[in-house]
Amino acid sequence: MRRPPNPQRTLAAEIPTASPGTRATVMGHVHRRRALSSVTFLIVRDRSGLTQVVLGPSDLERGDAPPEETVVRVTGTVTSNPQAPMGVELTAPDIEVLGDHAETPPVELWRPSLTAGLPVVLDNAAVTWRHPGRRAVWEIAAASMRGFRETLDARAFREVRSPKLVASATESGADLFTVDYFGRAGYLAQSPQFYKQQLVGVFERVYEIGPVFRAEPHDTVRHLSEYTSLDVEFGFIDDHRDVLALLREVLAGMTEGIRTHAGPALEALSPVLPEIPDEIPVIHFRDALRLVGAPEDEPDLAPAHERALGAWVKDTHGSDFLAVEGYPMTKRPFYTHPQPTDARWSNSFDLLFRGLELVTGGQRLHRHQDYVSALASRGEEPSAYADYLSAFAHGMPPHGGFAIGLERWVARLLEAANVREVTLFPRDLHRLAP
Amino acid sequence: MRRPPNPQRTLAAEIPTASPGTRATVMGHVHRRRALSSVTFLIVRDRSGLTQVVLGPSDLERGDAPPEETVVRVTGTVTSNPQAPMGVELTAPDIEVLGDHAETPPVELWRPSLTAGLPVVLDNAAVTWRHPGRRAVWEIAAASMRGFRETLDARAFREVRSPKLVASATESGADLFTVDYFGRAGYLAQSPQFYKQQLVGVFERVYEIGPVFRAEPHDTVRHLSEYTSLDVEFGFIDDHRDVLALLREVLAGMTEGIRTHAGPALEALSPVLPEIPDEIPVIHFRDALRLVGAPEDEPDLAPAHERALGAWVKDTHGSDFLAVEGYPMTKRPFYTHPQPTDARWSNSFDLLFRGLELVTGGQRLHRHQDYVSALASRGEEPSAYADYLSAFAHGMPPHGGFAIGLERWVARLLEAANVREVTLFPRDLHRLAP
Repeated sequence: MRRPPNPQRTLAAEIPTASPGTRATVMGHVHRRRALSSVTFLIVRDRSGLTQVVLGPSDLERGDAPPEETVVRVTGTVTSNPQAPMGVELTAPDIEVLGDHAETPPVELWRPSLTAGLPVVLDNAAVTWRHPGRRAVWEIAAASMRGFRETLDARAFREVRSPKLVASATESGADLFTVDYFGRAGYLAQSPQFYKQQLVGVFERVYEIGPVFRAEPHDTVRHLSEYTSLDVEFGFIDDHRDVLALLREVLAGMTEGIRTHAGPALEALSPVLPEIPDEIPVIHFRDALRLVGAPEDEPDLAPAHERALGAWVKDTHGSDFLAVEGYPMTKRPFYTHPQPTDARWSNSFDLLFRGLELVTGGQRLHRHQDYVSALASRGEEPSAYADYLSAFAHGMPPHGGFAIGLERWVARLLEAANVREVTLFPRDLHRLAP
Repeated sequence: MRRPPNPQRTLAAEIPTASPGTRATVMGHVHRRRALSSVTFLIVRDRSGLTQVVLGPSDLERGDAPPEETVVRVTGTVTSNPQAPMGVELTAPDIEVLGDHAETPPVELWRPSLTAGLPVVLDNAAVTWRHPGRRAVWEIAAASMRGFRETLDARAFREVRSPKLVASATESGADLFTVDYFGRAGYLAQSPQFYKQQLVGVFERVYEIGPVFRAEPHDTVRHLSEYTSLDVEFGFIDDHRDVLALLREVLAGMTEGIRTHAGPALEALSPVLPEIPDEIPVIHFRDALRLVGAPEDEPDLAPAHERALGAWVKDTHGSDFLAVEGYPMTKRPFYTHPQPTDARWSNSFDLLFRGLELVTGGQRLHRHQDYVSALASRGEEPSAYADYLSAFAHGMPPHGGFAIGLERWVARLLEAANVREVTLFPRDLHRLAP
């Protein structure tokens, strides 16, 4: 036998439009309990917002108001009150505690912003993510992923799932986690790079959102040992400029995804969403060095250079984005396609977002012989890459792709000082829990 | 300076509607090369289908037709030919090889179905997935994931990302992969169970599609050491029947996703898609034992029992699905909610799909004290679960959820004998590559 159904639930966001005088039921956590001399206010928090509940003297005679974070079902009379947060409150409430009274939370979740330091916030992630301002951060992240997929689904890309347990390093031997794989050594994939390339030979256009693992021995505000990578790879391109053009579409889609799917979070956090120019400005690495006054044999851009370039492109092009193309081949992975006109440079790029590297992308080699040569010239044994190389021996189209780090994207968008702030349960050199 | 753009590409599927007599350009792999005495046929494969290209004597004078799997760009005259596979072919072609001639593939991809044994298919995954019949298998999988997300996005569920590197076992100490985490022991998550529950306290409704890891020491057709789990968890439920009702919506959405997003794959493989009944039939575990003639103290259903139940529900209800609820508490994880009327049984279920277990789901405990008692009664130390338990101490709604194994779903749908057949790069006791 089934119990009679519980009263129909109304979400907090719908309460202001409910008919005054009717009874409505909200469910959620007690966000705030505020006892005055003869009246107690309970603010109930659900996924859509907050509802004020008023307990008068006769309500309080029937029992104490439950403490903060307790989960409750409250049925009350919808009552206009211009002084209530949403202009409406619930009065004469019946309050049912679903579970037990909650312990006092480690931080005061009802305050407009969390005052605790980052370690406390992270150590108590399950509770601190309940703060509406924190929750909004992840809603931006989730909407970004949704926009990413919507953009690519609409362009006939296929979602793929590559293995995270692998037999050897994908890009370099460093920063690799070792796994005991039934008594032999396995590794955690640092990226889906090799797999997404192979799958271009199957589906032409692929994407994957998944975890990647870096045994990153540095304790910085930008590095995690596990993060979410938004990977794209596609075939039949002319060169890396086609990759950049797709990246532009994807970034526009992610921004649009936030607007469409995370409206309340956007309102709560009011970040400045980037304007995506019709064409992302491009500068060659060589010219970028000249622009920032760095020596012309510098093999990479320093963070200060990236910031200077970000300021320059904002001033001159009004753009939040700048693609630096042509990075020296010596600084790029072996699968990078050289610039056809000058093989010192590469057909690859870094995308700077407000002066910080956000995306690396480019054209890859697609001829088998080029791979064999590239590996040999780096002193690597092609046989160690036999499975990967066999895709190229059996015919691969010209192709390229990119990877966006979800946490870096969100952190930069929200001007978070530390990527850990925008990661649900971050992992780093020191942190493997919660 | 940019090169002039390449001729506009036409997809194979669009060639039959191109105007006869015009020139069209297709790009893809040479699927089949068939040389007759005076004419050679090239079938070009792209992501949308196949195009027949005809090389006459004068074309062949200009050079040999490239071998199978070579990537080409072919511009030819659209010519009606009722004998061509699609009624249209390209004649007088200009053929450009994009890359080099391909090596002979390890299996003949142009045959209607692959004749090689499973080990050969798996060892050469990057190439064998190019077979149109194989590619269609993954397109069914990708469309299933898309349907899953569309269903949940429409119901205000949030996508979350839980860590795969964890400090301790999530469900039981067995079948856990150990990772060298900066010199100390870490583990690969067997499921996002603990995290998705904690996040119900934040978002109320969450889902995640991600890899899970089981150091599964059995070499069976149903087990992988890494697979894709489609996880759902949500709050403010009455009991496990609410979970089952949502599962029904999700399965309907996955099936609809296949219809909508994988039309050509559906046509190629013509699986019998399940009819999703308005309400999935439910039988209590106790009654299920009776029905199949098993002893009433049997703690679990054997595969033969599941098959018998699948046949029974098909006969009596015309349903491909049967939910078996009430599994004995002793066989369920500690977080399982007991049946309120009789605590020997649980508020959990297994969903059988055509007589095979596909999904496990149910209601979870939500009171902190219940967790402490459940762990104690199993001889486990609650302090080992401190981070997890703190979510419950700080107030959690009644909640539940389920997990669908993507590979099992697709294998059962396509009647694949082995889950490895439907996994892009499967991992098992013996296989860590390619």
